[in-house]
Amino acid sequence: MRIDVVFGGAALTPSEVQGRVVAVIDVLRASTSIAAALANGARAVIPLESPDDAVTRAKTLERSDVLLAGERKMLPIPGFDLGNSPREFTREVVEGKTVLITTTNGTPAIANTQGARDVVIASYVNYTAVLAMLRAALRGGADITVVCAGRDKQFALEDAGCAGRYVSNVVKRLAGIELNDAAQACSLIDRKYGDQIVRLFEASEHGRALRDAGFGEDLTACAAVDSYPVIPLYQDRQITKLGPDRER
Amino acid sequence: MRIDVVFGGAALTPSEVQGRVVAVIDVLRASTSIAAALANGARAVIPLESPDDAVTRAKTLERSDVLLAGERKMLPIPGFDLGNSPREFTREVVEGKTVLITTTNGTPAIANTQGARDVVIASYVNYTAVLAMLRAALRGGADITVVCAGRDKQFALEDAGCAGRYVSNVVKRLAGIELNDAAQACSLIDRKYGDQIVRLFEASEHGRALRDAGFGEDLTACAAVDSYPVIPLYQDRQITKLGPDRER
Repeated sequence: MRIDVVFGGAALTPSEVQGRVVAVIDVLRASTSIAAALANGARAVIPLESPDDAVTRAKTLERSDVLLAGERKMLPIPGFDLGNSPREFTREVVEGKTVLITTTNGTPAIANTQGARDVVIASYVNYTAVLAMLRAALRGGADITVVCAGRDKQFALEDAGCAGRYVSNVVKRLAGIELNDAAQACSLIDRKYGDQIVRLFEASEHGRALRDAGFGEDLTACAAVDSYPVIPLYQDRQITKLGPDRER
Repeated sequence: MRIDVVFGGAALTPSEVQGRVVAVIDVLRASTSIAAALANGARAVIPLESPDDAVTRAKTLERSDVLLAGERKMLPIPGFDLGNSPREFTREVVEGKTVLITTTNGTPAIANTQGARDVVIASYVNYTAVLAMLRAALRGGADITVVCAGRDKQFALEDAGCAGRYVSNVVKRLAGIELNDAAQACSLIDRKYGDQIVRLFEASEHGRALRDAGFGEDLTACAAVDSYPVIPLYQDRQITKLGPDRER
């Protein structure tokens, strides 16, 4: 069994996902917002490539059932209901709704996972839940690929640090798990920052850019380990929560 | 001023090299072999994309002046004079010759640096010489990009570790130098392995593959800090040694 980390969702090749359990991380902020939405009762989150795709898709659904969400250059998209701040995805706003989301890096990374056995959206806010799933998959003989969405196809420190926390703990007390070079590097980043996740974010270019753009509180929200303990699974082009839904 | 590390030469964008001082690292083994060749008296090293390109180019030159070198899947190319092992580039073999070299990851990374102010080929074997040049460039106001060639467009631990050694030391006692996320991650890798460079290589996938393919001694050669203290500059599509040439 092995755990491979891939930097940049755009760089994903079919052999890196085929038959594997894939975790997609865009911790600032798409994967955090998706976990928040599902934890707060959204029926589903549908990732879409562009704002136009989201608007087109919304027209096929009952308008009152749908929320349009996402960002371009960190900012909310004009005419959309929500931006990409996890703090916006409250129960009052999202409960019972289908969220159509489009973000710069997160949604393309999710779209590139075709052929995977399972795709889960991972972050700090749903850390333990997703870790448990990945560990079970690994013990069941699956190979794992952790995709760091990154930023504009570049390496992003915050995604790598989050991936490192998964890598380090998923292999604990398991022998003979192979790590690729990127997975080893991620472990070192996690070891450096540990629980000082806001410090990790503030060291990262994207974290600093978010703070400079007025989203400093999002860093705290995205660093709150296990605050939204859901397992968001991507299947049939939509993300839903694993497990019983209180609504049904 | 800033130092950016880029993982994967294929991912280089013009804005990452334009007007900058660029260091290209493919430490296992192309950049080490290039330093060895120039240190041992090769007139020039010409990086070429494919074996066919190398053969075609050789025909335009006096055959006795030329050596064909390189690898595909780590192994020497049939009909070529040399593989990609730095231990082959001895003074007896390369002195006075022009070396045409084609390698899987190193030569494409070098080719992608068009528009840079200066391009230098960096490794452990010419570490202090290249560090001195980069530091001088930085103090003179230049921005620096360190390109980790990587392996098959993937992140490679050994190139990142070598890049980290440059990053950590080039900024020493200089204030206000910005590092991108990848540069910070590389520093952590360098901090983890320090002078245990063979251990770094043995932790890397490419290092293990080389050892398994019978090139274990190359790891030791590539880890020998300052054993070939040259500054290899890429200009007009060829790499020559900065400074006086004993031959002329």
